[in-house]
Amino acid sequence: MPRVVVDVLLKSEILDPQGQAIERALPRLGFDGISDVRQGKHFELTVADDVADPEDVVRRVADTLLANPVIEDFTVSLVS
Amino acid sequence: MPRVVVDVLLKSEILDPQGQAIERALPRLGFDGISDVRQGKHFELTVADDVADPEDVVRRVADTLLANPVIEDFTVSLVS
Repeated sequence: MPRVVVDVLLKSEILDPQGQAIERALPRLGFDGISDVRQGKHFELTVADDVADPEDVVRRVADTLLANPVIEDFTVSLVS
Repeated sequence: MPRVVVDVLLKSEILDPQGQAIERALPRLGFDGISDVRQGKHFELTVADDVADPEDVVRRVADTLLANPVIEDFTVSLVS
C-alpha cells in the first residue's frame, strides 16, 4: 500500500517563533553556521491500494485537515 | 548554502494520539482508505558553506535539540 508524506510549513512571510527559538539556542549548544530554521508538521499516511490517485487524495486531506492554507504551505510526496 | 531537512516521528511502538485523531476524523470528512496516520515534526535548516559535513552537524543538532531519542526517531536529508 502506498505511503504518502505531507510536510507543512508556515508560509515564508509568516513569523516562525519556534524556528527562531531553535536558531538562537544552537550557538549556546556549540552549533555554529546554522540559519533560517523553520519548524513545521510532518505526516505519514498509508493509502489503500484501491484508491486511484493516492497523492491527489492526500493533497485534499492536507488542504482540508492537515494544513491551514491561509498561513501554511504543504508538500505531498509518495514515498513507497 | 545547503538546506537540510529533519523529520521527527514517534517511534512506531509509541502510541500516536494525534495521528489516531486524524485517522478517525477522515471518514467523517469523506476520505476513505487512509490508515496508519502518524504526525511528527518537520524542520528545515540552512547550513553555512564553510561547514564541512552539513548532514552530520544537523544529525547532531537533531539528536541534541530537535528530537527526543528516547521516544522519537528522526531522518536527516540534504535537499539543496
